[in-house]
Amino acid sequence: MPSAATVLETKELKRMDAYWRAANYLSVGQIYLLDNPLLKQPLQLAHIKPRLLGHWGTTPGLNFIYVHMNRVIKQQALSMIFIAGPGHGGPAVVANTYLEGSYSELYSDISQDEEGMRRLFRQFSFPGGIPSHTAPETPGSIHEGGELGYALFHAYGAVFDNPELIACCVVGDGEAETGPLATSWHSNKFLNPRTDGAVLPILHLNGYKIASPAILARIGHTELESLLVGYGYKPHFVEGDKPEAMHRLMAATVDIVIAEIREIQRKARHGGDSRRPLWPMIVLRSPKGWTGPKEVDGKKTEDYWRSHQVPFSDMDKPEHLSLLEEWMRSYRPDELFDANGRLDPELAALAPTFNHRMGANLHANGGVLLRDLRLPDFRNYAVAVPAPGATLAESTRAMGVFLRDVMQKNQDNFRVFGPDETASNRLGALFEVTDRTWVAERFDYDDHLAVDGRVMEILSEHACQGWLEGYLLTGRHGLFSCYEAFIHIVDSMFNQHAKWLKVCGEIPWRRPIASLNILLTSHVWRQDNNGFSHQDPGFIDHVVNKKADIIRVYLPPDANTLLVVTDQCLKSRNLVNIIVAGKQPAHQWLNMDAAINHASAGIGLWEWACNDQSGEPDIVLAAAGDVPTLEMLAAIDILHQLTPELKIRFINLVDLMTLQPQEEHPHGLSSDEFDSLFTTDKPIIFAYHGYPWLIHRLTYRRTNHGNLHVRGYKEEGTTTTPFDMVVLNTLDRFHLVMDVANRVPKLQPQAAHIKQRMRDKLNQHTQYIHEHGEDMPEIRNWTWPYQEANT
Amino acid sequence: MPSAATVLETKELKRMDAYWRAANYLSVGQIYLLDNPLLKQPLQLAHIKPRLLGHWGTTPGLNFIYVHMNRVIKQQALSMIFIAGPGHGGPAVVANTYLEGSYSELYSDISQDEEGMRRLFRQFSFPGGIPSHTAPETPGSIHEGGELGYALFHAYGAVFDNPELIACCVVGDGEAETGPLATSWHSNKFLNPRTDGAVLPILHLNGYKIASPAILARIGHTELESLLVGYGYKPHFVEGDKPEAMHRLMAATVDIVIAEIREIQRKARHGGDSRRPLWPMIVLRSPKGWTGPKEVDGKKTEDYWRSHQVPFSDMDKPEHLSLLEEWMRSYRPDELFDANGRLDPELAALAPTFNHRMGANLHANGGVLLRDLRLPDFRNYAVAVPAPGATLAESTRAMGVFLRDVMQKNQDNFRVFGPDETASNRLGALFEVTDRTWVAERFDYDDHLAVDGRVMEILSEHACQGWLEGYLLTGRHGLFSCYEAFIHIVDSMFNQHAKWLKVCGEIPWRRPIASLNILLTSHVWRQDNNGFSHQDPGFIDHVVNKKADIIRVYLPPDANTLLVVTDQCLKSRNLVNIIVAGKQPAHQWLNMDAAINHASAGIGLWEWACNDQSGEPDIVLAAAGDVPTLEMLAAIDILHQLTPELKIRFINLVDLMTLQPQEEHPHGLSSDEFDSLFTTDKPIIFAYHGYPWLIHRLTYRRTNHGNLHVRGYKEEGTTTTPFDMVVLNTLDRFHLVMDVANRVPKLQPQAAHIKQRMRDKLNQHTQYIHEHGEDMPEIRNWTWPYQEANT
Repeated sequence: MPSAATVLETKELKRMDAYWRAANYLSVGQIYLLDNPLLKQPLQLAHIKPRLLGHWGTTPGLNFIYVHMNRVIKQQALSMIFIAGPGHGGPAVVANTYLEGSYSELYSDISQDEEGMRRLFRQFSFPGGIPSHTAPETPGSIHEGGELGYALFHAYGAVFDNPELIACCVVGDGEAETGPLATSWHSNKFLNPRTDGAVLPILHLNGYKIASPAILARIGHTELESLLVGYGYKPHFVEGDKPEAMHRLMAATVDIVIAEIREIQRKARHGGDSRRPLWPMIVLRSPKGWTGPKEVDGKKTEDYWRSHQVPFSDMDKPEHLSLLEEWMRSYRPDELFDANGRLDPELAALAPTFNHRMGANLHANGGVLLRDLRLPDFRNYAVAVPAPGATLAESTRAMGVFLRDVMQKNQDNFRVFGPDETASNRLGALFEVTDRTWVAERFDYDDHLAVDGRVMEILSEHACQGWLEGYLLTGRHGLFSCYEAFIHIVDSMFNQHAKWLKVCGEIPWRRPIASLNILLTSHVWRQDNNGFSHQDPGFIDHVVNKKADIIRVYLPPDANTLLVVTDQCLKSRNLVNIIVAGKQPAHQWLNMDAAINHASAGIGLWEWACNDQSGEPDIVLAAAGDVPTLEMLAAIDILHQLTPELKIRFINLVDLMTLQPQEEHPHGLSSDEFDSLFTTDKPIIFAYHGYPWLIHRLTYRRTNHGNLHVRGYKEEGTTTTPFDMVVLNTLDRFHLVMDVANRVPKLQPQAAHIKQRMRDKLNQHTQYIHEHGEDMPEIRNWTWPYQEANT
Repeated sequence: MPSAATVLETKELKRMDAYWRAANYLSVGQIYLLDNPLLKQPLQLAHIKPRLLGHWGTTPGLNFIYVHMNRVIKQQALSMIFIAGPGHGGPAVVANTYLEGSYSELYSDISQDEEGMRRLFRQFSFPGGIPSHTAPETPGSIHEGGELGYALFHAYGAVFDNPELIACCVVGDGEAETGPLATSWHSNKFLNPRTDGAVLPILHLNGYKIASPAILARIGHTELESLLVGYGYKPHFVEGDKPEAMHRLMAATVDIVIAEIREIQRKARHGGDSRRPLWPMIVLRSPKGWTGPKEVDGKKTEDYWRSHQVPFSDMDKPEHLSLLEEWMRSYRPDELFDANGRLDPELAALAPTFNHRMGANLHANGGVLLRDLRLPDFRNYAVAVPAPGATLAESTRAMGVFLRDVMQKNQDNFRVFGPDETASNRLGALFEVTDRTWVAERFDYDDHLAVDGRVMEILSEHACQGWLEGYLLTGRHGLFSCYEAFIHIVDSMFNQHAKWLKVCGEIPWRRPIASLNILLTSHVWRQDNNGFSHQDPGFIDHVVNKKADIIRVYLPPDANTLLVVTDQCLKSRNLVNIIVAGKQPAHQWLNMDAAINHASAGIGLWEWACNDQSGEPDIVLAAAGDVPTLEMLAAIDILHQLTPELKIRFINLVDLMTLQPQEEHPHGLSSDEFDSLFTTDKPIIFAYHGYPWLIHRLTYRRTNHGNLHVRGYKEEGTTTTPFDMVVLNTLDRFHLVMDVANRVPKLQPQAAHIKQRMRDKLNQHTQYIHEHGEDMPEIRNWTWPYQEANT
């Protein structure tokens, strides 16, 4: 145990304690008070908020940590950000940024005087004011902590490629029970001490969650220490409830851990040590609701679950009013603030200055630091498409070559994330210029593993998403590639990020950041190796529930459109871009010029697949997604053969949001545009990549919606052939032809005949695959046969 | 290190090795062969499947474990189930259940002879055959493992209240990186050794995932051991690659761990020891693709990522064909099977018999063991509702009292799960008859914590969902209560369970199990303490993408309808039931008789809120959900006052699925029923709990859809008052009245006036809350004022 006396003089320690009291005072004030901020008058019911909302339990611990970080930041001129895992302890971070001045600089109404303090108190959890969490409104925050589990991921994401940054990351013992947090400790196997910054995790054991104890607070010291050592850390324990002793111990411990971090960095940066270091961390065990009322109405409150939110309400009880006044006065506000509400200058001097203040660290408003990516010209990566369908290519492989050069040009600013599927998803070209990040044990036969690798693979979608969020929020760029079905694992993380972006858009000082780009491949239609469990195209449905300003969904039908879309996504800001693209060898339809035109419009006719040029179509056929496009074109081929007189219009859709009304989404087509494409009265058959009803949900206000018939994935699947998958879901060419036969009036005389031929084909298919285990040659070998006629 | 010689005679060990070779042989056969199962002829290309699909890498390890479990099951007459975390190693479990005979008993075509073996091989990953994973089709499986992370949760869920059961749970080192798995080790703090069974985790380190190494295989022995000790286990290491030594070591270790489990259970059951034991576990470190080709085309394959799926394909290369034959013959099939393909009787005798076989353990087909819940009469829990709106109650509190008595009557068969929110969600009555399950440290001031508690709280939605799934799949009952927004954390787990249920419905021998019941409370409209991050009603949208046969969504508007729905859900089978209900004091509308009629129909008129009895309505107003119902009724009140002549029909909806066409969902209304409720031509305003477009997606085929206007949550929110939340999303009474004024032709003369009055009200509201911080008294105190007229 370090001798704290050597670290901190009693005088400084007393000042720090006073600063902590000031933060606690301001925290309680935010939760309870409407007025009378300095308690100049005896407290009355009229000074109390009518609705008491907030979380006290974690707040004094956060305040304690903040004060101690301030000391070491100032002393050593550190660059540090504060990530409050228990972000619901919002009053703490607001109080501290107010004390250090960064709050008032952004919100001039909330000035550092009595009136400002009154407003500070009033606005908290109050209509028209600020949320109760460390939300986007909170200076210095990149992490709301509303949904628990992602604090450490965000912290690690923030420090990758930020060698001078330290992320002080408080992990609540409640959050520590979540799955994502439990695996996020292993992020230290991906941190390069030479070129990345450091994370200082502080596991805050305050014993209770909302009502139950926390697991890590109840497994004993030995087991807990063993767990943290097993996670690869060197834990330092700060435990107790006596403020003075705790200040001494914490200060000494903070000095030690910062010294350990610097020594690790020195060895790696100047000593050539490439072994994985044991990073220090702190376990802070302090009472829940520390310094709050020990008992309320005779019931244990401090160090107990009753402190979790507001420790007592029913403020019309006089004894509660007195209890509150007593509690607030226990912080001795008149020693802390002058009559005008200004913090004692000796205390104010404890805070760091300028951008060293954690509320003003530029990394926490990443857009300020954002540099554009250096992008090669995506046209140079075009797949040659001499005629529609003339070539086969793996679309994501072309994208991988483009990404390789993006990586090459942005070695400190761009990372690619994925759950061990970068090569499997055909993005392997990346490994020509970088490796997989890996700081754990390495063997000479390992494949592209390196301490300074920039492709981050871990079998945890939570980790990929969380790291990338942290990386983007601090002003960098990236891409997450994922199996389509398993992106649902991060549905809720996506929600939180989309909400964060939405609110940031309403806050003038929050600068735009790079978009969150998600490539969904290994999609529903090609799960040959796996089957039903790997088939779910519903992430799109989930995404479109969020604000239209924030979300984009692209379904490029081939490699060149995928390249255009990728370039567009990498240049965009403040969005979540979802790109769905296959990785299997597939037909290529558009050359680069055509792809640019098509992807820029987002939706359009493919003239070479239409034969309605001379007038109105009999039917509109539309497709979105690579497999539906293939099946629809194959259906058109069959229709040309069976009923050459049928006038067909073919529409391909890349940008799903074009379907929505213009009023609903910035990419939405106007009514006129939509009607001129889809007609106002002709039957429409739409072959869609995902759940068919999503197309209805996007188009129900369109004129011709009544004639729209959609095919898509309807939750049928198993381990079978690629074509059988579309057959099981009636998205195949034969069913599409039957749909046309059913819907075009002028085909009625032939309809029965056409449908019988299609049923025969389907029977032939079923028989063939059961016998041979693969699709019929006419399916496997089909391609668009009208190339010469059209080119 | 135990002396293995003492455990196992060489002769028995050789037999076990032969059995293992047989399982490996059958596994390779499944992946590669169409024919020639016993290799009676030299291998030819015609014997090989055209598409090679499957995962070899994990398979020999699973086979190894299975053989060793068989030995100890047989020796000690254990009841054990096998949970293959790496469920994609399906060939292993299929091979073993085939060898032990349980497979052929369920699938008589796959007989234990040469022809059966040919079919066994052919069907694997083949159209019309079986999936490549340990899917519902696999005897003895309750866990597909398609999505990784939930193996240990399922294992623990299975053994709760099953004191004699042991779940042998293989955790792959890939899966071990996921968040859910990383926290699932802590399940041992919730296992009561007196009345629960045991889980034997086997962490299988085979070093590589698809392409990268696995973290836990690369942190060194000391750190790994420390981690597992920190998780509260006593790890036993079995490491190596020499089969004979490994068999000896594994057998000795298995004997030790089973003895340790029995000793723990003895102490708890007969020695009165209630401390948390350190449960044993095994770390098996063996090569990936063990016994497979060491190299293919000169490249390292065994013990490397190249073994992950099919180690080599391109079977038209003669050297690959030879390599496969050589590999398969290395298992010496002629020593294992006779000319008819029957396993050597000495080897067959190694397997357990009857229901001791892991493929025939009844717990893995839980419906066989399912007993109905003993349910009290839910009518006895009715909230008194003398007239609509006359009383306030917390709906979930009434449900809690009912659940208390369900718990009381089913103390070995029913559990309630939730992330630390049981009391907060007003289900606290449960604690009158049971406690929170807690086997970690306890203090005397703790609140309802007990080793034998039956309410399972952990701050991990993954744990709640995973444990409950395991509990249900083994034939018991339960309920998961969750904050509405954070149920998205388990979106993907829900997918997997819904898919599992869908497939089980198509397998005759899978018997129905109790439904998965999820109560969503602390819903989007009442997040007073938190705000935007806690607002997301989109789980419903996610759920309705799954098969209609499987899913039900209920939005009871008050306590009595909630009671009816709860009773219905607890009695149902093979479904996922989603119930959305508020926990805040709210208006009560229906007495129990009315509630039974209403909830049974799922949708209906509330006569007392209609005034169109004498003819056609001018407008149809509909509501689904407690808050929308309140706002719509308040809107009707305003309309009655402003335009008493307006004929209003009010429809309330409990069962969301009634909206879908009858052809799409078994609960769907027929067209006639729908049209008679909603009319075919009158304007409809629908106030919906969630994202409004979902109502369009469910009704776009209905006659009157063109006149349907839906209000709901449109992703606006912050920390504000309850009424302001509905205002922000234009779901409030004032906006609803404006919607009516806009849409009813006969109101046009007054419309401008009505709308101005409503805008005034909204301004008044905004001003009031910004001044007072709470809703206007006229909002807070409003209730349905026509009680006397109607009762």
